[in-house]
Amino acid sequence: MAKRIYNFYAGPATLPLPALKKAQKELLDFHGTGMSLMELSHRSKEYDAMHKEASSLVRRLMKIPDDYKILWLQGGASSQFYMAPLNLQKDGKSFEYVNTGVWSKKAIKEAKFYGEVKVVASSEDENFSYIPKNIDFSSDAAFAHITGNNTIYGTEFQEWPDVPGDVPLACDMSSHIMDKVIDVKKFGVIYAGAQKNIGPAGVTLLIVREDLLERIPENTPTMQKWKTHVEKDSLFNTGPCWAIYICKLSLGHLESIGGVPEVEKINRKKAKILYDLIDNSNGFYKGHAKPDSRSLMNVTFNLPTPELEEKCVKEALEKDLVGLKGHRSVGGMRASIYNAMPIEGVNTLADFLKEFQENNQ
Amino acid sequence: MAKRIYNFYAGPATLPLPALKKAQKELLDFHGTGMSLMELSHRSKEYDAMHKEASSLVRRLMKIPDDYKILWLQGGASSQFYMAPLNLQKDGKSFEYVNTGVWSKKAIKEAKFYGEVKVVASSEDENFSYIPKNIDFSSDAAFAHITGNNTIYGTEFQEWPDVPGDVPLACDMSSHIMDKVIDVKKFGVIYAGAQKNIGPAGVTLLIVREDLLERIPENTPTMQKWKTHVEKDSLFNTGPCWAIYICKLSLGHLESIGGVPEVEKINRKKAKILYDLIDNSNGFYKGHAKPDSRSLMNVTFNLPTPELEEKCVKEALEKDLVGLKGHRSVGGMRASIYNAMPIEGVNTLADFLKEFQENNQ
Repeated sequence: MAKRIYNFYAGPATLPLPALKKAQKELLDFHGTGMSLMELSHRSKEYDAMHKEASSLVRRLMKIPDDYKILWLQGGASSQFYMAPLNLQKDGKSFEYVNTGVWSKKAIKEAKFYGEVKVVASSEDENFSYIPKNIDFSSDAAFAHITGNNTIYGTEFQEWPDVPGDVPLACDMSSHIMDKVIDVKKFGVIYAGAQKNIGPAGVTLLIVREDLLERIPENTPTMQKWKTHVEKDSLFNTGPCWAIYICKLSLGHLESIGGVPEVEKINRKKAKILYDLIDNSNGFYKGHAKPDSRSLMNVTFNLPTPELEEKCVKEALEKDLVGLKGHRSVGGMRASIYNAMPIEGVNTLADFLKEFQENNQ
Repeated sequence: MAKRIYNFYAGPATLPLPALKKAQKELLDFHGTGMSLMELSHRSKEYDAMHKEASSLVRRLMKIPDDYKILWLQGGASSQFYMAPLNLQKDGKSFEYVNTGVWSKKAIKEAKFYGEVKVVASSEDENFSYIPKNIDFSSDAAFAHITGNNTIYGTEFQEWPDVPGDVPLACDMSSHIMDKVIDVKKFGVIYAGAQKNIGPAGVTLLIVREDLLERIPENTPTMQKWKTHVEKDSLFNTGPCWAIYICKLSLGHLESIGGVPEVEKINRKKAKILYDLIDNSNGFYKGHAKPDSRSLMNVTFNLPTPELEEKCVKEALEKDLVGLKGHRSVGGMRASIYNAMPIEGVNTLADFLKEFQENNQ
């Protein structure tokens, strides 16, 4: 029997155990082919069926309209930081970004290679502890960009900003894709590194409205164009086959438990357990994110002293609650409770934190 | 007991069975962490140890000097087709390429985005059935580029071309890296998609001499610079952790059987079995590659008629010899016999081909 712990790392993150068991079972022989999925040609019919089902699962789970394309790319969201502005540039218009932390800043930095960037809202004034409201995107931007969830600070957009006219909204959903029901039609582009909420590291999911594929200058290297990958259904070159396969298994599990509406309910319950604990701790645990901006995925909090924080992380680890150290930008602790974290894990963590408070306040 | 067949696909390709079994065994619990390697933070000490060992294995197996850096990247060799010229450009000098087939042409196409490309030698005149000799690279090129092995045609450089002065030689070794002992010092850059000879799809190995990292213009998107990844030991962003791990297991197996010198001996034996069979078939099997350019990795051949070729592929499949259909550019059949193909697989194929000839000539 393999040892299994509760993994609160910010990502790569815990995966559904039934998906991992399936992968383990068929690792040497995928669907009777006598080969591992890792050994199977990406041009074989067996691989193709798996690949198509992975995309279909994304489409069903997120109710993605037919005029959006689904891509499996490499290079992480970090590559989309330059590919999004490269692909979405239009007539020299400026790009409008909201700055909600480290990952927004990285996106902004790369966008500047392709045009003028305007930061139309920021929460940097309070160490990114909130999501700006009443964001004023202008109607002549090439596109608008937000980071949907901010792992480091534990903030998440609760509602999507209005974007005027036909300006497409691009969103980095790496750390919360499929954590709740969304209306994909509000977005022009959604991208997400898989390794937090839907699969392992090594693959990036991209969802793009097809009319946006025509913007990129023809004179661009082939691999940098979303269009290249759309035309070949993400099989222009050999893709990250195994990572796509694990996404397929993980998303299949999500569908089997009731899909995004059901996991949203569970996510809200899980987050409430921890936020209630913080709010009822008489200030022993202090949340970093403002209550109206709190993330369902990353619960960030501080203890009265750095020494107590260190002690708490250490004692948690001894109880097989792993990966709770906060990011250095915020310090303290961070519990990442992505889709695949079972509610039992959150309850175990909450019990531990209550006991830790009793013993240390 | 899992069914296992002999996999002659051009890639993704067969992997060493002991490596796959190890991966299967520790899939749910990597080294006692209670997590899958896929769930483990890329910033954890357990991941870091694995990551460093993967690079050390490459360095030991290829005897790579200290002034070369080893990178694990995403995007396939197809991404290096633009990243190599982007990173190796210098003072507006031209780039010199040898055209040995489809993959060379793709590399040439992407290089043109970054400078003038001169094709200094080509074997297109005879459907890429040979490797050009006496290649005349000039001393004022920014770099020289070759495709070391050509999967489609079954040709491979038998010796490396001379490159004058300090012009760095770049080589796409995707389909034959570590198939034989090479002197890395002859190269400025070596890149290889992992999925043929050293691991699964989803990761690209890059070996680069460190003095070449200073050429790229500062004003380049972060992810496109090799330097970015060198400075962070391929952990600038979350990498393809699982694919690197499988490379580590696969390369560990290679080391355990005696490393590259030993696998070269086996590769030469395996190739000889098939080429001897072709040469002794009285013209029933006709090799595509000229004898002095034959690949150790991909044995390409035709039968007297397309009907016989189809029949042969079909009957092979019935005997669990899979993936033998040739590429449409050449037709016929192709047996890809990469490092992880056991000699038993090649013998089984040879026996089948002998019998097929007896029954059908």
